[in-house]
Amino acid sequence: MIVGTEWMIEAEGCDPDALRDESVFRLIFENVIGDLGLNAIGSVWHKFPGHGGLTGLVALSESHLACHTYPEFSIATFNLYCCRERPEWPWEQNLRKFLSAATVRVARHERGAYVLPAAIGEDLDSIPARFGGVN
Amino acid sequence: MIVGTEWMIEAEGCDPDALRDESVFRLIFENVIGDLGLNAIGSVWHKFPGHGGLTGLVALSESHLACHTYPEFSIATFNLYCCRERPEWPWEQNLRKFLSAATVRVARHERGAYVLPAAIGEDLDSIPARFGGVN
Repeated sequence: MIVGTEWMIEAEGCDPDALRDESVFRLIFENVIGDLGLNAIGSVWHKFPGHGGLTGLVALSESHLACHTYPEFSIATFNLYCCRERPEWPWEQNLRKFLSAATVRVARHERGAYVLPAAIGEDLDSIPARFGGVN
Repeated sequence: MIVGTEWMIEAEGCDPDALRDESVFRLIFENVIGDLGLNAIGSVWHKFPGHGGLTGLVALSESHLACHTYPEFSIATFNLYCCRERPEWPWEQNLRKFLSAATVRVARHERGAYVLPAAIGEDLDSIPARFGGVN
């Protein structure tokens, strides 16, 4: 039984100052939530001291949205978990704009169901998709 | 660059009443956090009305812990994201105890780095591990 879809996003080569700026991530989240018609029901934001990064978690009536940043490595990661079908958000285009990201990778995972490798006739081409395709 | 490890856990065949009981999930989270020596820095809990499930999000100084439940399908899903190396938590044993889960599956993903399928000599046995091994 599939109960939701989760996107894991890795953005590399980002502007370290943007990765310390909570207002940038609040704006990214507002865009994700607005563009996909999601509904926020609570949040936690935390900025680590000094040159540290930040964490944002938003509970949605459709599941959750999370980010963690690592300014020391110019990396941000995101999770978007939706229990209802949603279109793809243009992560690459938007994170290049908001974070000056050099590389953005998106993997999609179906939640609730887990297909064991041995349970399917092994077709090598099909495996990346089963384990979360690459956009 | 790997910045963290994320575990995705799917528990099926759970007791639907437990999946509506926030105190059960708070206790599970307390156990995860205590057993792994993690530190909570903020949380959001939400119970959906009537026979609905619940959502729990806890920000950790080491990243985050999340759960969503689907009593109508007897399913709970969890995410544990840690930016520092941690031992494996015994999800299967504990979710059988706390939720009467019939099946528990755990997949592990490295965050920050994303290995493209074409980038590695294809050894079929290695693929499940690369895309998040099965416990």
